[in-house]
This record gives sequence, structure tokens and C-alpha cells, in this order.
Amino acid sequence: MDKYYELTEETVIDYVNKKLVFFSKDAQFKCNEIGDGNLNLVFMVKDVKSSKSLIVKQSLPYVRAAGEDWPLDIGRGEIESRILEIEYKLTGGLVPEIYLYDNEMCCMIMEDLSDYVIMRYGLIDHEIYPNFVEQISDFIVKTLLLTSDVVMEHKEKKAYVKSFINPELCEITEDLVFTEPFNLGARNNIEASLIDFHKKIIVDDRELALEAAKMKYCFMNNAQALLHGDLHTGSIFVNKESTKVIDPEFAFYGPMAYDIGNVIANLIMNYLSAFFSMEEGAGKDEFCTYMLETIRDTVDVTKAKFLSVWDGVVTDLMAKKEGFKEFYIEQVFVETSGVCGCEMTRRTVGFAQVKDLNDIKDDQARYKAKTTNLLMAKELILNRANYVTGQDYLDLISKYCK
Amino acid sequence: MDKYYELTEETVIDYVNKKLVFFSKDAQFKCNEIGDGNLNLVFMVKDVKSSKSLIVKQSLPYVRAAGEDWPLDIGRGEIESRILEIEYKLTGGLVPEIYLYDNEMCCMIMEDLSDYVIMRYGLIDHEIYPNFVEQISDFIVKTLLLTSDVVMEHKEKKAYVKSFINPELCEITEDLVFTEPFNLGARNNIEASLIDFHKKIIVDDRELALEAAKMKYCFMNNAQALLHGDLHTGSIFVNKESTKVIDPEFAFYGPMAYDIGNVIANLIMNYLSAFFSMEEGAGKDEFCTYMLETIRDTVDVTKAKFLSVWDGVVTDLMAKKEGFKEFYIEQVFVETSGVCGCEMTRRTVGFAQVKDLNDIKDDQARYKAKTTNLLMAKELILNRANYVTGQDYLDLISKYCK
Repeated sequence: MDKYYELTEETVIDYVNKKLVFFSKDAQFKCNEIGDGNLNLVFMVKDVKSSKSLIVKQSLPYVRAAGEDWPLDIGRGEIESRILEIEYKLTGGLVPEIYLYDNEMCCMIMEDLSDYVIMRYGLIDHEIYPNFVEQISDFIVKTLLLTSDVVMEHKEKKAYVKSFINPELCEITEDLVFTEPFNLGARNNIEASLIDFHKKIIVDDRELALEAAKMKYCFMNNAQALLHGDLHTGSIFVNKESTKVIDPEFAFYGPMAYDIGNVIANLIMNYLSAFFSMEEGAGKDEFCTYMLETIRDTVDVTKAKFLSVWDGVVTDLMAKKEGFKEFYIEQVFVETSGVCGCEMTRRTVGFAQVKDLNDIKDDQARYKAKTTNLLMAKELILNRANYVTGQDYLDLISKYCK
Repeated sequence: MDKYYELTEETVIDYVNKKLVFFSKDAQFKCNEIGDGNLNLVFMVKDVKSSKSLIVKQSLPYVRAAGEDWPLDIGRGEIESRILEIEYKLTGGLVPEIYLYDNEMCCMIMEDLSDYVIMRYGLIDHEIYPNFVEQISDFIVKTLLLTSDVVMEHKEKKAYVKSFINPELCEITEDLVFTEPFNLGARNNIEASLIDFHKKIIVDDRELALEAAKMKYCFMNNAQALLHGDLHTGSIFVNKESTKVIDPEFAFYGPMAYDIGNVIANLIMNYLSAFFSMEEGAGKDEFCTYMLETIRDTVDVTKAKFLSVWDGVVTDLMAKKEGFKEFYIEQVFVETSGVCGCEMTRRTVGFAQVKDLNDIKDDQARYKAKTTNLLMAKELILNRANYVTGQDYLDLISKYCK
């Protein structure tokens, strides 16, 4: 790694021009570090004369939020760029285009998405995205079903499994999502008013611990499809027309439910934030209704697409047997609600939380939103077989949000 | 592969002496090709003066039983020798010792087991092996539990998963065990009197096809433990004192049930052979009782060892949660009976069958043994949750063998 150095807003322009003929020679550059994730530097480089722009994403050799004493494999960006290229082809452009991956600098140079916003921030601002459900369900069904044994030639699929084994990033998920939130201590980050609630409702519930353990082993052992691996609303860029999924550095072969459950969980948490913190009027009803429809439709449209796409793409003889499609997809949605509950739990009490809940200013509203989130999460994990349609989720929400 | 050539009884002695200082210079060599599997040449090389001996096992670049138009990756022996070394350490010697692996000639030179017999042939001769259950249950529990996420550091386990991905050999199992026997045609090998029975009882049963499809997807996707991958009685050497498992070339990370179910299925098929073909008297009762006890105890002792070994070796925090051990092992044994049924089916109607059944001389007895085998197999696949103890298997057998 002799040639690796951390880029800065000052050095990134030269770096890009050495690597790529993209900007004209008389470009007037503007450059900002815009990364807000935990793991990378992200620069937006723009020629203000032509308005052409691109993104440079550089892996850091440690977890940014934790510092240099939590080291990470710096080559993970190579997996990410390969995944983005695969997902770009599978989805017809529902991820940004990759211009170049530089394995010495561990940099991806890629399509700028300045005319998009990160969905989490958009939703926190109560924006509505009319095409999101159609597009995220397309992304989910195409990236997951088309990389599974149902469709792929089995030896090619195993070559993919091998190629995308991702031990360090999977360990983060195993620890932060499926272990620490169900125990005391470690890197949990629990606000004072929630400490007793967390212990009583989550940690002390033996049945919940057992079900969470089952979810963890499903995550570790079920090499079903090539996951995005971190598909929350902070990994999704949106605008009124379009959706682009970013940041697949956690990608590996795992259970389809992990991606789907993460999307639904983060939509639910935004809904809870709006429901408990928006003032009456001020568009609250409209936005809350939009969010409920989005949660319901994300489940139902995704499931309907799995079912309708299946027949045209299935290649495996045994997967064509009567009833297998329905069994397979039902199982995915049972596990999905369990994942959803694990994600909701860890985003409330774990190391990496969400602004949707943490930025609620009023203490009582925030407490109500977070405790409701934990209670619903627990129900989803314990009784995941009961939550397999959009309406099942809405019934749960309406029971807890009155 | 310039330096690769197929060994013969004539060339193997020179080959061994070039590679290894094992025999003395005045050795008087005797050499026989003793392979009876589908995939390899196997030579026993012996110095008749000293009685020292060893085995040379060479991979062929095609399936031996099918000919050169069914090619196979010739490097698979390297995986096999690594697996044997791992299993040797994990089990304290329940597999043969490897002296050398030669990756140019695709040859393993290894411990000779001349004082053992292949268990299938021993059982066909109605021999009794008093230590088999203790030793095979040790082999199963140590090789499976100690390579799972329950025990191994998770990043190391994933490195193993990656290292032992085995697409070509897995494809053979996916096709020959989990697909073709449940369909017509392909490489199935069905004796004339069974053709209608197979179609009616197996192929035309939609529920059975669906359950077999579920078993196939469990086999392909559940990267639970480092399997032997072909643990039938033809892969086990035994004598009155000791047991040695051989031929792990199908090894990969898959469901524990696959190994356990194969052992049980091949014991059951030997029992059926004895029950339907042995004459009354002539030790029939004694041998049949021994086989029933062996079937029962293989299930129960293996399960008991999983449960008792677990607490001393478990490292994963979530796997330590109350009830998880029992859930995990129960699941293994549910899937085990399903695997058992698939193996019994494919050994009766599929491409690779068993001597236990095929060598029954009397047409009626053979028909009865094979049809009973298929009926029991079907019950095990369809209702696998009901067959989780040794007694469950014995009850099934006593229902069908009257």
C-alpha cells in the first residue's frame, strides 16, 4: 500500500485528472467532502462552468466513526465497485455508474448524484417520493432473485458466493445488529431514559434472545442471494422521479430477507418519528398516510414482483415444482419481519443509530417513538410468521400508534 | 498438467519411491488397483517382506463410471487431502493419515487401511462392528460442530467456507440426489419391475416433489459446517476395534444433516437387505437386531454428544442463549430424516445405487426391499419433523418390515 494516501479536498482534483479524462482543461473546480457514513471519505468534484461533476469515494483503513483503533480491510471498495457494476446491469441503472476503480488508492470514481438526496434526510424533511416503491421493489427483486440458485447456473452462483465472501463487514453486522442490542454493554449507545426499558423489554426477555439468535444464524449461514447488505434509507438516493441505491460495501451472499427487512425497518422508523413528533396539521396526516402506504406497498409490490418475475426467469428444475415458488417467497417474508425487528432494535439502542429518531427534539416524543419502536420490533421478531403482508405491518403500526 | 499421467499397477511403485522415503531399498513390492468408486484410481502398494504398505489415490479428469465425456476438475484431490488433515486433527485420527499430496499428479499418498474393510461390504457379509456407533458419532459431532459458527471464530469460518467451495462435486449431489430421482429420465437407473412404482409413488407425488425441492435448497444454501459430503457406508472403513472415514472429496460447507442422514440411510438400506433376503435362522435375528440397534444408537448417541459437547466448545454469545442449543440440534435432526429419505430414494432409482439392495438375488425379495425402501424414504421426506429420535426410526421400520 505504498501509493495509498488519504485524499483531501485539496488533493482530490489532481488525483481525478490524472486518472480520468472527464473534465475539460479549462474547468473551474469546486470540491467538497460530503461523506457522512462511518467508513469512507466521499468527495464531490464539480466543474462549475460546465456543471459536470463526479464522486470520488475512498476507503479508509479504519472505521471512521470509531477511529484508527478499529481497523478495516481497505480493499473492500473493490468488492463494492464490482457489486455496483453487477447491480447496474441487473437493474438497468438503479445504482450509480462506476467510471473507474483504483485499487492502489482504494478509490471509486463514479456518477455524481447531486440531483438526488439521501432518502433518510428527504423523509426527515417530510418529502414524498412517488416512484420509490416501484423502483426499490425492482431493485430488490432483480438483484436478489437473479443472483439466487433459482435462476443462476449453480456453479456460477458458487463462484459468486466465493468471490463475495466478506468476513469483516459481515462481522460488523453480526455484532452490531444481531448480538449487542440483545445484551448489555459492548458498543450499545442507549440514552439514559431508555436504559431500564431496554434491559427489561429486550435484554431480559429469554424468548426474544432465542429468536434473535435464530435470526443471527440465518444471516450467517443462508447463502441465498447477493445482498446489498446495508439497504437502509441512508444508502438510497432519491428524487421525485428516480431511485439510486449506493454503498453496497457490505454485500455478500446472505438471506434475501436481510435487504428487504432493512428497507421496511427504516421506513417504519421514519413513520414513528413523524407520527410522534410532527405537530397536528402542517401536513402531518398527508405525510403519515404516504409513509404507511409506502410501507404497505414496499412489502406487497415486492412480493408480487417476486411471484410474477419468477416464472419467466426460473431455471432450476426443482424450483419449478408446484408450490415451491410460494413456499420460498413466503419464507423470505417471514424472515423479513424478523430482520425488520432486529434492525429497529439496533437503531434504537445499538452503536449506529438513526437521525429519524435521535433528532426528535422533544424528550417525551422521542421517548415515546423509541419505546414504541422497541415494542414493535420485539413483536416482529417473536411472531415473524404473522407479518408477511403490507396490511400485517399496518395493523401492527395502528395498534401501537394511537 | 504436462506432468500428469494416469498411474498403473506397473508405474505406481517407481512413482512412490521417487516421492517418499517409506519403503526400504530391498522391498519386495506388490501392487493392486483396488478402487471401486466412481471418480479415482486407488492403488495399494505393499512390501511383502516388511508388510509395510500405503495407498496412492489419483484423481481422474473424468467420472470413472461414466467415461471421458463426463469431465471433472482434477484438482479436487487437493481439497480432499486438506480436509483429511483437518478431520484427522479434529477427530484424533478417525480418518487415514496423509503422507503427501502431489498437485502435479493429483495424487494423495496415505495410510493403508488393509486391516479394515469397507463397511458396506462388511455389513453385506453380516459382520458386526461393536465400536462403530461410538466412533462415527464422534466423527460427526467433532467434524461438524467444531467447524460451525457455534464454535469457530466467524471470520476464520468464512475463510474455510471460501476455501472449500466445491461447485462441481456439489452439482453431482444436487443432480443425482436432489433432482433426478424425483423426475423421470436423466441418468436414473431403474430396474424394469420398479418403473411404474417409481413413477406412481415418487414422481407423480406433488407434495413429495415440493418437499424434495426444499431439501435441495437447504443443501445448496445452508453453509452450516464443513461436511464430509459423501458419508455413506462405502466411505467408511471399519474393523472390530476401529473406524476410519475416507473419501471426503465432496466436502464443502453445507447442512450438518447431509452427513448424518447419509449414514442413517445406508444403515437402513443394509437392514432392509438383510431383513428381506436373509434366510430365517443363519444369524438373521442377531444381525437384524444389531442393525436396528445401530440405527437407533447412531441417531441417539450422535444427538446426545452434540448436546453434551456443545457447552464446552460454544463461543458465540447468541448461541449460548437459553434454548438455542436444543433448537439448533433439533433442526439438524429434522433435516437429517429428510436427507435420509432423499438418499434412500436415489440409491434405489438414481444413477449410483448400492450393492446392499442390488445384490439381493431373489427377484421378489429385491422388489420388496426396494419398494419398502422407497415407501419409507417418502415418509421420511414428507414428515421429517416426526423422525428425530432413534426410536422414531425404529417405529417406522417396524411398521414397514413385518
